[in-house]
Amino acid sequence: MNSRSSSESPKLRRILERAARLIFEKGFDGTSMQDIADACGLTKAGLYHHVATKEALLIAIMEYGMDLFEEVVLARVEHIADPLERLRRTMANNIELVLTDSSKEVTIILHEHQTLTGDAQKKINGRKKRYVRFLEDSFKQAMSRGQIRKVDPTLASFSFLGSVLWTYKWYRADGRLSPQQLSEGTIDLFFNGLMP
Amino acid sequence: MNSRSSSESPKLRRILERAARLIFEKGFDGTSMQDIADACGLTKAGLYHHVATKEALLIAIMEYGMDLFEEVVLARVEHIADPLERLRRTMANNIELVLTDSSKEVTIILHEHQTLTGDAQKKINGRKKRYVRFLEDSFKQAMSRGQIRKVDPTLASFSFLGSVLWTYKWYRADGRLSPQQLSEGTIDLFFNGLMP
Repeated sequence: MNSRSSSESPKLRRILERAARLIFEKGFDGTSMQDIADACGLTKAGLYHHVATKEALLIAIMEYGMDLFEEVVLARVEHIADPLERLRRTMANNIELVLTDSSKEVTIILHEHQTLTGDAQKKINGRKKRYVRFLEDSFKQAMSRGQIRKVDPTLASFSFLGSVLWTYKWYRADGRLSPQQLSEGTIDLFFNGLMP
Repeated sequence: MNSRSSSESPKLRRILERAARLIFEKGFDGTSMQDIADACGLTKAGLYHHVATKEALLIAIMEYGMDLFEEVVLARVEHIADPLERLRRTMANNIELVLTDSSKEVTIILHEHQTLTGDAQKKINGRKKRYVRFLEDSFKQAMSRGQIRKVDPTLASFSFLGSVLWTYKWYRADGRLSPQQLSEGTIDLFFNGLMP
């Protein structure tokens, strides 16, 4: 399965989202293909039509997580000429993605699961690294325009990612802060630290 | 097993650190008590002398993680009267803990593992919440003294935690940044965003 196929089939997307939720709740080893088929209203044969093995399913979840990220975050900001505005929009879009209920567990598995090995891991890590480089380049451009003070671009990139990705660990939609307050507050806190 | 016992026995500490490393590498379900006994140079009976079940072992790892945190982070900063200085020292100590090789996997399991349920989970979550309240109170005090600008104390606390805890995901000791550069850079970036 390649990354295009998961983006193109709404049915496969739903399977991956439900499988991610189960794996998040019960652990990868504690979840059987039968459990996943049941949760999707499929027979086991029906599920195997979409994914050949449980390992392939895990890879497909991570690739779907990266597809989603590239589609709703990266593709919508890459064209923004102003590097500081580009970074702010990237953070807003990424926080929004992390808070999206339907794909929340897909994102968690993408960033926390250790099981992946070999070529599949290299491919996913390569796509993650592309995001880090995009952030680093944007920080460097913002520095050279004098929009932000001089900081280490790698450190700034990972602090950015920490602020964004940690939100799925603690944010509760039924809590005191609205998603908008969370997003605006995080952006404000982070970028204020960069002002010249 | 209570939290005091794990702090008081160096032998148990070593068992928990090695078990955490194995569980991190192979997954909780993929790691047997025999694997853990082997890694510790113990017989299985010897291991069972220290922990009654694999579930109890996981709980003990998390309690040890909280013990360590309270010992090397919280206990060393709670007495600092100046709230901003208290927060800066807390971040420095917490980053140092997260980068400590011997207990790195203990910390990761404390913050990522989902398997814990019931009373054990409540107890660990209670100890984590105490840290969040300590941070929130310190931010409120720093605000009321005019040391930092007005921000949401909950949001500031979780951004603080995100900056600190995300480091174990990406920081490599053999990379370009020294631990000191990482620590100073993260503190600078975060607290500069809070200046009035």
